[in-house]
Amino acid sequence: MMPAIAIYPGMRGSVHLSELPVPAPGPTEALVRVRRVGVCGTDRELIEAKLGRPPAGLSELVLGHEVLGVVEAVGDAVRSVKPGDLVTATVRRPDGCPACQAGQPDLCLWRQYMERGIVGAHGYMVERFAEDERYLIPVPAALESVGVLVEPLSVVEKAVRQADLIQTRVRSWAPATALVLGAGPIGLLGALLLRARGLAVVVVARRPAPNPPAAIVEACGARYVSVQETPLPELVATLPNIDLVLEATGVSALVIEAMGAVGNNGVLVLLSITGGTDRLSVPANAINRDFVLGNKVMVGSVNSAREDFEAGVRHLAAFEDHWPGLTARLITHRLRGFADAAMIEERAADGIKTVIEMRDED
Amino acid sequence: MMPAIAIYPGMRGSVHLSELPVPAPGPTEALVRVRRVGVCGTDRELIEAKLGRPPAGLSELVLGHEVLGVVEAVGDAVRSVKPGDLVTATVRRPDGCPACQAGQPDLCLWRQYMERGIVGAHGYMVERFAEDERYLIPVPAALESVGVLVEPLSVVEKAVRQADLIQTRVRSWAPATALVLGAGPIGLLGALLLRARGLAVVVVARRPAPNPPAAIVEACGARYVSVQETPLPELVATLPNIDLVLEATGVSALVIEAMGAVGNNGVLVLLSITGGTDRLSVPANAINRDFVLGNKVMVGSVNSAREDFEAGVRHLAAFEDHWPGLTARLITHRLRGFADAAMIEERAADGIKTVIEMRDED
Repeated sequence: MMPAIAIYPGMRGSVHLSELPVPAPGPTEALVRVRRVGVCGTDRELIEAKLGRPPAGLSELVLGHEVLGVVEAVGDAVRSVKPGDLVTATVRRPDGCPACQAGQPDLCLWRQYMERGIVGAHGYMVERFAEDERYLIPVPAALESVGVLVEPLSVVEKAVRQADLIQTRVRSWAPATALVLGAGPIGLLGALLLRARGLAVVVVARRPAPNPPAAIVEACGARYVSVQETPLPELVATLPNIDLVLEATGVSALVIEAMGAVGNNGVLVLLSITGGTDRLSVPANAINRDFVLGNKVMVGSVNSAREDFEAGVRHLAAFEDHWPGLTARLITHRLRGFADAAMIEERAADGIKTVIEMRDED
Repeated sequence: MMPAIAIYPGMRGSVHLSELPVPAPGPTEALVRVRRVGVCGTDRELIEAKLGRPPAGLSELVLGHEVLGVVEAVGDAVRSVKPGDLVTATVRRPDGCPACQAGQPDLCLWRQYMERGIVGAHGYMVERFAEDERYLIPVPAALESVGVLVEPLSVVEKAVRQADLIQTRVRSWAPATALVLGAGPIGLLGALLLRARGLAVVVVARRPAPNPPAAIVEACGARYVSVQETPLPELVATLPNIDLVLEATGVSALVIEAMGAVGNNGVLVLLSITGGTDRLSVPANAINRDFVLGNKVMVGSVNSAREDFEAGVRHLAAFEDHWPGLTARLITHRLRGFADAAMIEERAADGIKTVIEMRDED
């Protein structure tokens, strides 16, 4: 048996240590020893019982969907990874819908998918897991310190890829100016990705600088603006046409303001889940008119595809070339799992990304 | 000199008969004798002084941007049209922005374009006009009765083309179900276009059937639903996943409801200009969450490109094959211009499309 960090989905604050049998990898699977796992807003929502479903027939769900591990053993048919390789793993597993059949489970049409650590399948906060090689992505040893960020970066990679695909409609698409709303891990990784591509990037967040996210924003050559100091519409009025907006705040009032911020022929990508049933008073006429006259696009984006993980690995290496050591500064807190499992529930003040080191015995 | 129907932009209700010199076509231009011109909501907004600008240095603007005419003479360098050809003409003329330079003035980035009959250039409610052959689209003689509808159809063609380009992001894109909001000319032409493509189409409008738009909807095999009888959310709950929504009502409350109607991986195309500064109370959290989790797109679309006019000509012919004589039923009112010019201001009760026959002397 081996330890795991689990919840009882639907029961608030039910984080606990559990035990699972060590899995035996099938012919197309690898056995992966987990090195560390990232904690994100979805994990907190799982702990708050806002979402989540255990695997069929079970009452508990192992958490964790941002993983870095080492391959320990592989099945006979495995060709793409070998023992000793660092790997991460995708999260969503397809249902039989047309999009999943076409290899795009991130665009699952029926939404009957499973997601490891979220719905219907155990996650990666465990000593070892077995996974089909199709879902494992090699990570170079040089990226050991930041490889746990491939999953959140893949979410941003998908967002930007979707925007680029959408913009095949605009022959002259050459984005120059981007606005990123939110300075959590998604917003910051978005800023790094767009800066690496050469865009002028403004990151907007709540708290005034100085603070750790603002320091990272400035270190990559982007600009940090606090909406407490400059309301978004006022900021937007001073900027050139905004080609791309990444919305990653989780605040629906900012989603609405983002609709007013995106420029002519631009794309607003919605990336955050906002909760609740509150209604907002919005300038619906103006939003519609500006979208029509400016040929603007808004697109929702969730999850990510294997190609986005692969792009994430490439871009983490590019980030190291551009800004050595900067990406690792997103990891502001480390827990010693399994001993510190209960602390997952707490959001560290001033923190960006918490990771759990899954090696109590080291 | 020759007669024209003009307004003084900025002065409400200023429709009047004017006179212009008969133009002499340049080497790359054709002289076109206008046969008929369609009247649309934009013309009414021009008459109500909500928009519009005269050509530089003038105080009046000739109306009209939906035209069918006959080539009377051509400049020496003209190759694509000849005297006797039926033609229609595009509306927008490029500025120097990157999109215009790339041949997409309908996606004009700087929005400093001119539009014949709307901003900065005279329209087609005139006896004859000269135009560069680049902006003239031949219309087969067999489509004489419906050719005046090419321009409004081109607006729908662009909308659907944009949706298809956007959906290159979804490998399994095979739209099956469409919702069209509004049963004016744009909504009805959208229903015909999507029916011709084989989609199941539901057209939603205010008034209960029977009425002339509902009869056209049903004749092309689409379904007509009055929101007075069935609220939109209630209707949507009974439909399969809605792949495509065309919003053409001009009512921002329906724009908001449309955001809730579009299905997973679907596209909502906003086509109508809504006026005013009213704010609406909207379920912003739910809209954002559904867009994100369902990978949904909203896109604004205005104007149309030459290729959309060409597609419109092809599809008008297809409509005649599918439903002989049906498209002509969109033209419910005919004015005798120039005698009836003052009547442009009135929106005929129970009418769909009003056209002005520009041949007083016939």
